[in-house]
Order: sequence, then C-alpha cells, then structure tokens
Amino acid sequence: MFFRTGFFVLLAGLCLAWGNEGNAQDTGRPYEQTAREILSKTLAECNSHRLLRDLVTVAPHRLSGSAGSRKAIEWGKEALTEAGADSVWLEPVKVPHWVRGAVERCVLLDSTGKELRELSTCALGGSIGTPGDGIEAEVLEVRTFEELATRKEEARGKIVFFNRPMDRTKLSTGEAYGGAVGQRSQGAVQTAMAGGVAALVRSMTTRLDDVPHTGAMNYVDTIPRVPAAALSTIAANELSAWLVRHPHSRIRLTLSAQTLPDADSYNVVGEIRGSEHPEEVLLIGGHLDAWDKGHGAHDDGAGCAQVIDVIRILKSFHLAPKRTVRAVLFMNEENGLRGGTAYAERDRPGERHLLALETDAGGFSPRGFGVTADSLTFAKIANYAYLFSAIDADHIRQGGGGADISPLGRKNVPMLALRVDGTRYFDYHHSDNDTFDRVNERELQLGSSMIAVLMYVLAQEGL
Amino acid sequence: MFFRTGFFVLLAGLCLAWGNEGNAQDTGRPYEQTAREILSKTLAECNSHRLLRDLVTVAPHRLSGSAGSRKAIEWGKEALTEAGADSVWLEPVKVPHWVRGAVERCVLLDSTGKELRELSTCALGGSIGTPGDGIEAEVLEVRTFEELATRKEEARGKIVFFNRPMDRTKLSTGEAYGGAVGQRSQGAVQTAMAGGVAALVRSMTTRLDDVPHTGAMNYVDTIPRVPAAALSTIAANELSAWLVRHPHSRIRLTLSAQTLPDADSYNVVGEIRGSEHPEEVLLIGGHLDAWDKGHGAHDDGAGCAQVIDVIRILKSFHLAPKRTVRAVLFMNEENGLRGGTAYAERDRPGERHLLALETDAGGFSPRGFGVTADSLTFAKIANYAYLFSAIDADHIRQGGGGADISPLGRKNVPMLALRVDGTRYFDYHHSDNDTFDRVNERELQLGSSMIAVLMYVLAQEGL
Repeated sequence: MFFRTGFFVLLAGLCLAWGNEGNAQDTGRPYEQTAREILSKTLAECNSHRLLRDLVTVAPHRLSGSAGSRKAIEWGKEALTEAGADSVWLEPVKVPHWVRGAVERCVLLDSTGKELRELSTCALGGSIGTPGDGIEAEVLEVRTFEELATRKEEARGKIVFFNRPMDRTKLSTGEAYGGAVGQRSQGAVQTAMAGGVAALVRSMTTRLDDVPHTGAMNYVDTIPRVPAAALSTIAANELSAWLVRHPHSRIRLTLSAQTLPDADSYNVVGEIRGSEHPEEVLLIGGHLDAWDKGHGAHDDGAGCAQVIDVIRILKSFHLAPKRTVRAVLFMNEENGLRGGTAYAERDRPGERHLLALETDAGGFSPRGFGVTADSLTFAKIANYAYLFSAIDADHIRQGGGGADISPLGRKNVPMLALRVDGTRYFDYHHSDNDTFDRVNERELQLGSSMIAVLMYVLAQEGL
Repeated sequence: MFFRTGFFVLLAGLCLAWGNEGNAQDTGRPYEQTAREILSKTLAECNSHRLLRDLVTVAPHRLSGSAGSRKAIEWGKEALTEAGADSVWLEPVKVPHWVRGAVERCVLLDSTGKELRELSTCALGGSIGTPGDGIEAEVLEVRTFEELATRKEEARGKIVFFNRPMDRTKLSTGEAYGGAVGQRSQGAVQTAMAGGVAALVRSMTTRLDDVPHTGAMNYVDTIPRVPAAALSTIAANELSAWLVRHPHSRIRLTLSAQTLPDADSYNVVGEIRGSEHPEEVLLIGGHLDAWDKGHGAHDDGAGCAQVIDVIRILKSFHLAPKRTVRAVLFMNEENGLRGGTAYAERDRPGERHLLALETDAGGFSPRGFGVTADSLTFAKIANYAYLFSAIDADHIRQGGGGADISPLGRKNVPMLALRVDGTRYFDYHHSDNDTFDRVNERELQLGSSMIAVLMYVLAQEGL
C-alpha cells in the first residue's frame, strides 16, 4: 500500500511534468527523463509478473489446440482490454493439434527382458506414438548424422540414440543449442532413413539434471514415421555409460502421443491507435502457446506478459503514441508457426508495419535490442541506446527478430528482438523446469518497460 | 568425459598457438584470442562451481571466529595449493566472535499475554541477547530516524519497529539497499537514544517472503545497548497491518545472541609470482567469512571460488604473468573488516600493489568492471573492454572496489570490482535464501574467467 500510494502521487506529478519532451533536443538526449521514469516507476509494482502469474494460473498448459490454449486466448483478450487497449480482437487461425497422452516411458531391460531401470523421458512434440506395449529394441548411440550414415547397417531395427551434447564452450547458449537441436528436429527422419525403429535424443540443455526437454520434431512425407523422445541429460549419460559395458542392451519405449485433426484457434491482438499516423503500426509480440511441460513461464508466458504490460504502461503513463502500437499474442509458435504466418498473410488495407518486435528469449535481465534492418534504420534505433544504459541494457546489436514475426521480416518489415541474458534459458526451456518461480519480477519488468520506452520513442519519431 | 577429453586436446593446441600475443598489435585488439579461449574453454568444466560446492559443503556456516571459519581457512589453503599457486600462506588476524545462539523468537501477543502468532525473525549480527524469558513491550512503528526523533515520547519503554522498505523504484538494488540499511546498522542506537528497549528492522530486500535477513549492526560505547533483530518482509507487513487495528499490541522478543572474546583467525593468501616484476602485485580478493544463514553462496562463497579459480585458470592455460597475481581470501568482511585492515597494514617490504580487485557482488552474470583510479589508469583498463563484449560484459565504469580492499584504496591503490547483474542479489543476501543452488554455474564461471583475462592482460602490460 505504501508503494501504491507513492506510485500514483509520483505519476500524477510526472503527467504534469512531461511536455513535448521528444523535441527537447537541448539536452542532446531526448526522452531520457521519460525513459528513466518508466523504468523506475514500473518497478514499484512489477505488474508484468502479476500478468504472468495470472496466465500460468489460468492456463499452465496451452499447447496449440488444447483446452488450455483456449483459456489462454480468453485470458489474453481480457488482459489486453484491462490494460487499456483501444481495441482488442481475435484473428482466426487453424493450428495443428498434437497431444502427448498419458504414457511416456523409456525402460532399460536386462538380457532376460526384465526392467532394470527407468530413464527419464518425454515424447518430442509431433511424434507418433508407439504400439500400446511399446517398441523394444537394441540401442545404437551416435553423435552425428554423419556417424549414423557410416553405421547405417548397425542401425537397422534399432533405437537410435542421438547423444551429442550442446557445446558448453560456446559463449552463446543459443549457438550451442543451434549446434545440437538438429538431432531433435531431424533425428526421427534420419533414424527411419537408416532403418531404425525409434529415436531417442539427449535433451537440449547444458545442464546436468533428470528433467527431459521436449520441443518440435519433423517428419517428411516420403519417409516412414518413427516415434521420437527426449532423454534427460542424466539419463543420456547413464545410458551411454551402460552401453559401453553392455552394447547389446535393449530398451522399451512406450509413447501414447498422437496428432488430432487441425483445430480452430486465434491470434489475440490489441492496440493503442496512433494519434497522428494510425496507419503506421509498430508491432510487439510474444507467443501464447507453450509446450505442455512446466508453465511455459519463460517460453513465452514472459513475452506475453511483457507485450500486454507495454500497452498498460503507455496508457497508465498517459503517453499517447503518434503511431499505432499493436500487441500480438501469436498462437502456434512452437509447432507450426501458423499464427505468425496467418498474421503476415492477412490483408490489412491502408496499414503499414514500421517494425515488428518479438520478445521470446525468456523473462531474464535485459541487455538491449537486436535489430534486423537496413543500416539507416538500425542507426536510428541504436541512437537511443543511452535510454537503457542505467540498467546496463544498452547493447543494440545487428541481428534479431523472432519466429512469429519472421513472415513479416520476409516482407521487409524491420525486425527487433528484446535481448536478454541467455545464460539460464536452456536450463528451463521446454521442460518441467520452466515454471513461474524461475522468473524474477524485476528482470521481467525491466524488459517490459524497455519495450514500452522504445516503442513510445519510435512511435513519436517514426522510422 | 566427452568434454574433458575435448577440453584438454584443445588446450594442448592452444598452448602451442599462443606466442607473445600481447604484442600482436596488428589486429588492434591484443589479447582477443586469449580472452576468447579462456572464456570459452573454462565453460566446459565450470570449475568455479565445483570450488563453491566444496566450500559450502565443508563450511556452510563460516562467520568469523566460528568452527566453520576455521574449516574454511583450511579449505582455502588447500584449494589455492591445488589450483597451482606458487606459494600459499596464512596471515593472522584477530576477529570479533559473535554467536547467534539457539533461540531467536518474535511473538505477537494478545491483550491477555497469550501468544497470537510467530513473526519470522533473526538476530542482527552483533546484537546482544535478551533476558532468557525475552523482552515484552508495546511496539512503535516508524519509517525514519527523523520520525522516531519527533515521536521520542512515544518510544520510551517500547520496541521500535523500523519498517521503511527498500525503495523498489531504484534501478540499482544497491542504491535501494543504501537507502534503507541505516535502519539495520543504526536502529539499535537510535532506539536506545529514544528510550526504547529493543529494535526490530524490516529485512533488507525488495522481495516479499518470510525469510529474515541478518547483517551487521553497531553499538556506540556511550549509549546503552538494546537487542536488535530483523523481521521478514511478510512479517513486517503483517505486524504493520496488525498495529493499525491494535496499536497497543505487545510483542515478546527473545534472542540468545552474545559476543565472545576476540578469536584468532587468518586471511588466506596464494599467488603466482611474476616472471619479470614479481614485486608488482595485482591483488584479487573475496571474503571467506559469511553470515550464518544459508550457505553464504553468493556472499561471498562465489567470490572466493572465483579468485581461487583465477589462479587455476592462469596455471592450467600455462599463462605466466610478468607481474605477481595474488589471491586473498579475506576474513571478517561481514562484521569488522579486520582481515582487510590487517592486510593493508602489514609491512610488505619491496612490494608495490598495482591494483586490488574485489569480487563480492554475488556469482551472477557479469556485466563488466568498476574502477576507482585516476583517469589515465581508468582509460588503460577501459581500453580492454572489447575483450568482454562477446558476453555483453564490456561495461567498464568509473567507481568500484570492495570493503576488504578499501584500506588499500585509502593508500591510493587503484580499486576494481567485478560488476555483475545485481537484480537478484538482495533476494538472497544474508539470509537462508543464499544457498548453493541459487548460483548458476555458467554465470559464476564467466566472472572468474573475466577476472583471469583482465589480470593476465594487466600483469603483462602493467599500469
């Protein structure tokens, strides 16, 4: 209560104090006072954290097509309305509807077929299921597709175990992920091409724990489909060590996953209409769907909370952007990108997107922005780095975007991403580790507030 | 095992590849390759995390004078030796010996004296105890010493409850701490001056939880001593709300804390002797003592692990610094600074300290260095910021040091601090929240490796 009162008293003062600060060129640092006030005052309440808590309470699981995703859509619509958006609407999109089912087991067997021990596993997203009594086979461990190709004869009839770790020596965990995730996305196809019967994939994390990480995998129409599952990194290490001594060990993998017919779903859109150039749109987005593990708190409940909170911040500080600021909660980023595709394909007569920003790197401490744009646009944005130096978040770097906005990027809309500290991201990603309690309220809020500041500035100044 | 093998193969290659890179001015970015290799390769093992785990296992509680502190000293000596220091020694120092004792209770009473509920509390470090059956009195809540001064008549015979929160709107949590911590350090003296019988202080954190945070408090010889304890932020809010409706409520505070005679203790010192200018010393330090809550994992087990690991890194990469790099595990930072004072006062004939760096801001994601030095020295150091830009840790800022090295700073030794993301620091600080599992292995390691890089560069180039 103390904070709340203080906050609004200060807010009232601010509203009086702010004039047409964008023209206050005499300081050489326009918008500095506005930025400082937004960054500072929003920390009193950390409202983004409240939004995230509400989302994960209403819809902890919200994979495309699920009942949770429908609850999340309703929640998003209400939250954008409460945040003060001038208008809020749903844009329909058909989405894939994959369900995990009740059973996912991976068991190491002894030579008589008796169960030796359980290996912590989960189906990869999109995988077919196994027969009800599972698939039982010997295991071939490989590190690369090249190794599998050279050992193709050994793979026939076996469960192929892709055990190349994320490279811990990469300074960027994203780069380490990029170097390993092909095993997850393409492992089933490569397994089938080699005559294998199922794929097991080491979880995509640098951390050693017993939590399996799911994520998207793909099939190719011309190649038989085999089931695919992740092993926790501890289970992967155990299995690997076991296979050294018992190379002909058998495993039984049982998955009840299946893909249902495509489902009706929606992107959720809300905007503050520009006071002078409403036809010029600055889009900010996150994705509302999440894998059915943990809460999808960092991926990407955090981003959804942030873009909704940007609307709330602009409204509550009585900042009337000259151009339209539009928040989009995309559906189906994780397994189809149907929402992002549909958004970009939709006919929007008279509208022009000045930029699209995505926040989908987790609700961690912000470091700056990534920008994919021509050099002049980049320079215009980088010019405002000083607004974020007080929180060490003034690194505006070339390159950045997001899966959902990539279809807009292909239409030459400049793309931005909120850059955050990525050290912990893959510790949680797509797993039961990605829970609400792993999100720090101040780190999350600083990200929201930075987006609010940059969108306000660019809405006033144009690009 | 995979990593380990790869690591040493790569390491062997590196040792061959590195020549006199400091002179490779043709790139304009000397030491860039060395820095990249150190930052990258050390992430494979994250050895700092192992060191920290060992420390908190051997001596989870290690307040000055305690049995744990003696174990920590032995551990530090061994760890520096194993890390490859050319010499390791102990420097004696007398330290205060405060003990918490078994009892710390704060109970809200009803009008008949019956216990209504327990308020989560702990003694502040240095506090005297209460009589065995506690101190029972009404409570006066204040926000500032000024308020207490104006309400002095009301304070007589009461427990004074200092309930000014850390200001959440501060962008720097350190600044917010600075604005509130006077209540903790001076609350008992101010209470006694107003005729109060005990001080209760809201915990120093922006977070709302039920964990009390301890920390140092002071007495003044000429003013009577009254006991002082922290309340968790939840307990503080509950008590505050209760007092609105029941202003004459009584509390019973029972503490068994006491101060024993000063104890013998030590700073632990280990160094790599400079190959060309051994008399020129670059000091890196953390503090080995910690409050007797949690593991002191961030404060400052992390710093101890880092400075030991710097020695190990320099040795394992076969980097022979031209000037001496000396690691110091200071004793008694938390409640006396006797170790830092003794280190600076000791006669060290023929030696000159070029700089002293302290890492005592938690094992969080590094952002850069803070430097307190003349402008030329600052510029020389800031010139190497590019070595850390790949990990967004290139913010080299004016101002920085540490409590332990401040006596050296007063002798005009340039002071540096490792700057880290401070968002979460006070969530854990001086409380049962400050446990090993709250330290991320990669974040901790990047800090160690940055210090190793900068010390190597400055040991080669001088200042």
